[in-house]
Amino acid sequence: MAWGKRADVIVHEREPFNAEPPRAALAAAHRTPLDTWYVRNHGPVPGIDPAGWRLRVGGRVARPLELSLAELRGRFTAHELVATLQCAGNRRAGLAQVRDIPGEAPWGPGATATASWTGVRLADVLAAAGADPDAGHVAFEAPDVSRIASPPQRFGGSIPAAKARGGEVLLAWAMNDEPLPAVHGAPVRAVVPGYIGARSVKWLDRITVQDHPSDNFFQATSYRLLPPEADPAAAGPGDGISLGPLALNSDILLPDDGARLRAGPATVRGYALAGDDREVARVDVSADGGRTWTQAELDGPPGPWTWRLWRTSLDLPPGPVTLTARAWDSTAAAQPEHAAHLWNPKGYANNAWARIHVTSV
Amino acid sequence: MAWGKRADVIVHEREPFNAEPPRAALAAAHRTPLDTWYVRNHGPVPGIDPAGWRLRVGGRVARPLELSLAELRGRFTAHELVATLQCAGNRRAGLAQVRDIPGEAPWGPGATATASWTGVRLADVLAAAGADPDAGHVAFEAPDVSRIASPPQRFGGSIPAAKARGGEVLLAWAMNDEPLPAVHGAPVRAVVPGYIGARSVKWLDRITVQDHPSDNFFQATSYRLLPPEADPAAAGPGDGISLGPLALNSDILLPDDGARLRAGPATVRGYALAGDDREVARVDVSADGGRTWTQAELDGPPGPWTWRLWRTSLDLPPGPVTLTARAWDSTAAAQPEHAAHLWNPKGYANNAWARIHVTSV
Repeated sequence: MAWGKRADVIVHEREPFNAEPPRAALAAAHRTPLDTWYVRNHGPVPGIDPAGWRLRVGGRVARPLELSLAELRGRFTAHELVATLQCAGNRRAGLAQVRDIPGEAPWGPGATATASWTGVRLADVLAAAGADPDAGHVAFEAPDVSRIASPPQRFGGSIPAAKARGGEVLLAWAMNDEPLPAVHGAPVRAVVPGYIGARSVKWLDRITVQDHPSDNFFQATSYRLLPPEADPAAAGPGDGISLGPLALNSDILLPDDGARLRAGPATVRGYALAGDDREVARVDVSADGGRTWTQAELDGPPGPWTWRLWRTSLDLPPGPVTLTARAWDSTAAAQPEHAAHLWNPKGYANNAWARIHVTSV
Repeated sequence: MAWGKRADVIVHEREPFNAEPPRAALAAAHRTPLDTWYVRNHGPVPGIDPAGWRLRVGGRVARPLELSLAELRGRFTAHELVATLQCAGNRRAGLAQVRDIPGEAPWGPGATATASWTGVRLADVLAAAGADPDAGHVAFEAPDVSRIASPPQRFGGSIPAAKARGGEVLLAWAMNDEPLPAVHGAPVRAVVPGYIGARSVKWLDRITVQDHPSDNFFQATSYRLLPPEADPAAAGPGDGISLGPLALNSDILLPDDGARLRAGPATVRGYALAGDDREVARVDVSADGGRTWTQAELDGPPGPWTWRLWRTSLDLPPGPVTLTARAWDSTAAAQPEHAAHLWNPKGYANNAWARIHVTSV
């Protein structure tokens, strides 16, 4: 299968390659196997010779750096961190059901996954470069050129400097203890836990310390939440809400949407991710549209950087049943109820309650 | 009027004194006048002689401190910060409409307000005391004894050490450039922007650097979000979600709920607060229950620590009209729709869409 992915991935686009796993596959493990990881690409996978690859660190730094892979791995302490990534377009299908979203892939709940990442801390690299502590942003660039961008340009984006200095942001060369696959950004990618996947720039080759957010198309114009009445074709740099930290989200992974089940006790499983630097505090599941809720059991260690897989058992009456799930974060904020009220022209950030429809017989 | 408050405050309780202003009063200014500020007390206002007052700083510190007011003001640099506080019970009335909440005051939208605060940074005091950088929490205590607490005890609570080290947390002796009034915590109170008001401990006299959150009743047992089915009388330490950072919220201040207006264009005004360290990104207002929205104009400077007052004009059709408002934060998260789905036994953290009912003729 293309790019080492399992045979049953849902391919949204072949070139650039964009694919997600079916729901059930994500439920199998806290750390998602590499063949099950979603892929969100904006351009062709660049062919990079690791021997010739260099990471350039510049901008507002006292000592600009140009590091080979051996230098990056040799000069800085390696760290391993388990972290979840999630695409800003995850669960867009729920928005597209409300109103059409032309030109954007109808991602289901599978544009998120969890891995252990091995790499060096961006904070350590910035310290070695003597990054100006007053600079507000750290920008990433990579050689993949997207035909989506206007004008055509290399992929890029930025994060606030305070986030960049957090020990959780890595420049990673391994994923689940295997070398980073080409489709996931080899030889080195940024990993920015708690932020939309687009900021975890793959095939990273340039880091710039600067005063302002990146003016790259994917920071200034795309990955922004426009109001419902906006014309996305007319949207320009700075319009809408810039997406960075992820909002609280969850979905149901098992049973599958549309499944036929035996009436009676059924196991329901899913994921929840608090986003930003928050933790998942509670997940509620309902078989009666939210009239009554059962608290799910949360798997895995608590923490801000990874999802919590959850499970519970609900008693299903015979007939059509809507299963609903919602998460609460560590500020006691809950997900909003309806995708209809979150609809936006580019279909980002759908964090409405999860709903699937099953029939029990 | 009691405690220097304006004549039209809504008094929820005389002893301990608990009161909030009417909606319209809050809309008048970005910085709320002192006579308009809500008061949330858990016990009698303690009579403190400023000359005898001492602030003790202990726990995991290298150099325990005991500071008089003159020493606190003389040893550390004074800072001024405009910050909004908000009670965790703000807008409880909206939850009580869903289902009764016995024993808790039915606060409207007025348990929030904004002031400029003058004081020293908690971070500077902790540095002077040589606080252990590995200690995770900073606890506050004050002499007001609450009959609500079980067993009866001094009021207290704690915040994470990382928050305590943020420059925005002050030990304040002035409010809107006036000496801190007795009912608001004279001679010195904590001001913890972005967190529930209960953490901005008034009449502060003890700070303890420690490994764990405070075991005070108001941290361990109260100010926790219980699931709907929980019996609050049976809830013990550690139950539910501990409230700390505020969740995104907003309400409508003008027109008043129940007002009769002329049909046609009407000015609608209100507030929004992102909570935690987030900013308000957008406020939408609707005269048709959320079918169509108008973006409000946001007053005042952007920033994480203060509310944004907002205003817009809507065309009101003749007849009964429901006005609805909702805010979006800088992660593109929106408020949830219905208080019914947020109901909890102690009535905390109602951040459902704002709704008021008016009649236009």
